[in-house]
Amino acid sequence: MRKLVTLTTDFGTRDAYVAQLKGVLYAQGPRDLDVIDLSHEIGPQQLLEAALFVRAAWPRFPAGTIHLVVVDPGVGSARKALACAHAGQLCVGPDNGVMSLALGHELRAVALQPARFVTGAVSATFHGRDVFAPAAARLAQGAALELLGESVSELQRLTWPAPSVGRSELRGQVLHIDRFGNLISNISREHLAGLHEPRVRVAGATELQLVRCYADAAVGGSCALIGSSDLLEVAVSSGNAAERLGVGVGAEVVVIFSVGQ
Amino acid sequence: MRKLVTLTTDFGTRDAYVAQLKGVLYAQGPRDLDVIDLSHEIGPQQLLEAALFVRAAWPRFPAGTIHLVVVDPGVGSARKALACAHAGQLCVGPDNGVMSLALGHELRAVALQPARFVTGAVSATFHGRDVFAPAAARLAQGAALELLGESVSELQRLTWPAPSVGRSELRGQVLHIDRFGNLISNISREHLAGLHEPRVRVAGATELQLVRCYADAAVGGSCALIGSSDLLEVAVSSGNAAERLGVGVGAEVVVIFSVGQ
Amino acid sequence: MRKLVTLTTDFGTRDAYVAQLKGVLYAQGPRDLDVIDLSHEIGPQQLLEAALFVRAAWPRFPAGTIHLVVVDPGVGSARKALACAHAGQLCVGPDNGVMSLALGHELRAVALQPARFVTGAVSATFHGRDVFAPAAARLAQGAALELLGESVSELQRLTWPAPSVGRSELRGQVLHIDRFGNLISNISREHLAGLHEPRVRVAGATELQLVRCYADAAVGGSCALIGSSDLLEVAVSSGNAAERLGVGVGAEVVVIFSVGQ
Repeated sequence: MRKLVTLTTDFGTRDAYVAQLKGVLYAQGPRDLDVIDLSHEIGPQQLLEAALFVRAAWPRFPAGTIHLVVVDPGVGSARKALACAHAGQLCVGPDNGVMSLALGHELRAVALQPARFVTGAVSATFHGRDVFAPAAARLAQGAALELLGESVSELQRLTWPAPSVGRSELRGQVLHIDRFGNLISNISREHLAGLHEPRVRVAGATELQLVRCYADAAVGGSCALIGSSDLLEVAVSSGNAAERLGVGVGAEVVVIFSVGQ
Repeated sequence: MRKLVTLTTDFGTRDAYVAQLKGVLYAQGPRDLDVIDLSHEIGPQQLLEAALFVRAAWPRFPAGTIHLVVVDPGVGSARKALACAHAGQLCVGPDNGVMSLALGHELRAVALQPARFVTGAVSATFHGRDVFAPAAARLAQGAALELLGESVSELQRLTWPAPSVGRSELRGQVLHIDRFGNLISNISREHLAGLHEPRVRVAGATELQLVRCYADAAVGGSCALIGSSDLLEVAVSSGNAAERLGVGVGAEVVVIFSVGQ
Repeated sequence: MRKLVTLTTDFGTRDAYVAQLKGVLYAQGPRDLDVIDLSHEIGPQQLLEAALFVRAAWPRFPAGTIHLVVVDPGVGSARKALACAHAGQLCVGPDNGVMSLALGHELRAVALQPARFVTGAVSATFHGRDVFAPAAARLAQGAALELLGESVSELQRLTWPAPSVGRSELRGQVLHIDRFGNLISNISREHLAGLHEPRVRVAGATELQLVRCYADAAVGGSCALIGSSDLLEVAVSSGNAAERLGVGVGAEVVVIFSVGQ
């Protein structure tokens, strides 16, 4: 039965790091293993960005998929190495808060013990190649999670900023800017549910009405909408909102609403 | 029998959009489906660039390949969603002119009716994930084109500029600049066939003779040649013509030729 | 039996060059061929960078893997086209010194004779698509190396700078800067073996002690260590050494050591 192993890293592909990971997976995994690139363009050491990525991507994959996510500023230190099971899928990577933030704390997790499954040497600077890829290869071979390490209950915690709610406004911020320059905020569809006549304000721009899709605004016009990950975003139709409005990650996003009678 | 699904998008890979597409394809497609990345680096919303890409890439693939091409500034609007058959291959994407420009109007096409094949919700901003990937997965399952929508005869038209022909010169322009800085024009091998002693002029540089390959020019020297997609290009041997000559997309390219007796 | 074909190029993915390569491989190769992207981000025409990449990546792959490496400023000239066998793996690409530098001169190599295996036309500017991919497809079909061309003994030579050894210091240089800004030098683990109290100096920065991993230095602090390819590198913990120290490829790296009694 075919085994999918996905890769999410901050390695880029100009260096040979991803190539080495793939070599190890194909050399140590079963013959029917397929490696799927998700991203190697996570910002270097950007844990929140990695968590936002994982949160959006993983729920789309079929049961049995093994996800390797390696953003690992603490490589070689005492930080734990993890393998986790979540909703029928498996994931492997450093204990840096990415998995618990993206997937919740209901993970069944083990702290990897490399001596149980690594045959070669383990470098102090590249556990993606020397620990995580061999662990993923063993899981793809069908090994049970518990064979690779000891159960852990406390995982590293990472949080993203929560919006603050006032009587007539909701204050959040820009979490991420995508390739199109859309400003993706920490305000979710659920936060907006039930608010009367919400309008959105970013960077001193005029108040934006919520639209349904980019093309609902005039070409070149700013708009606000609920994006494909159920988060409020500010966009410019056929344009780049980050450049147009001159804002970056962390900028304030305010939703003003009418107080119902 | 193995099913190849290729991806051509303007999504980049820093965001999770491509990852979500892949998840849907693997979750909804047959077990022997393989996803092949062609490009996620098409310039944001650059339809002509996408068409030039598709024109070069698709003829190389085997019969039965399914191509997903999603450059979709009109997502969520009334623009049609298409699945097409062309020369033994299938393609899926928005009706934005890319397919008809790249492949000609001899496409057998249907306007997708998502209700026929989408089981979940359809967002207003990400039809790549919610409409096109499910359609490609169904085609990979073996579904006939006509099962997914109603036949359409009129597709959106997109054109690229044609060169103008004079008595002793041909005036075209730069369509694309590749990674090496080569200036790729809209003048084809066929346009040049039969011209006497053609010389090429770009951006006020001295007239260039046509050579056969980059290495035929001195290192650092400018040259003109028929590139691998049968289009006239201007290059600098072991260098970057766009930087050297300071020109961009849209710059004029003139071919001067001798008028035969 | 499954056949893996890896790709390492300087093509980028905004242009259709990689897509065309993949099309040819899938169209001409056996049905169980899988194409694996290693990198398309090798710097344009950067042969040393390609060799450093290959040296790190290939040893990780399983026996039988076929590697295509195309960095080819001399395309269309008299430079040979090669297929080589090395340590149970195969590689295909131009005779530009990359393979012999990365893998040593103990290669069993043939100079490809396209007439033996190419059915279509061969362009003068894109042998990746028209010569190397068809050759790789034939090797994946099981063809013997010797079927594709004539044995060659003398390959193009390429060298990287060797460090110079003095009585109390070793002088090397920065070969490569990775995505994290780490400065990777031409000084290897073997060069350092047996040196007393080595300290590292780059760009007039204070002398750095060798540490084991990035996290052993204070956050934001500079350090030196033996990286995952057994080369000395200078890093900034959770930061970017190239930016911090303002150095680039070619900058001097000096190891000072104590002269034992």
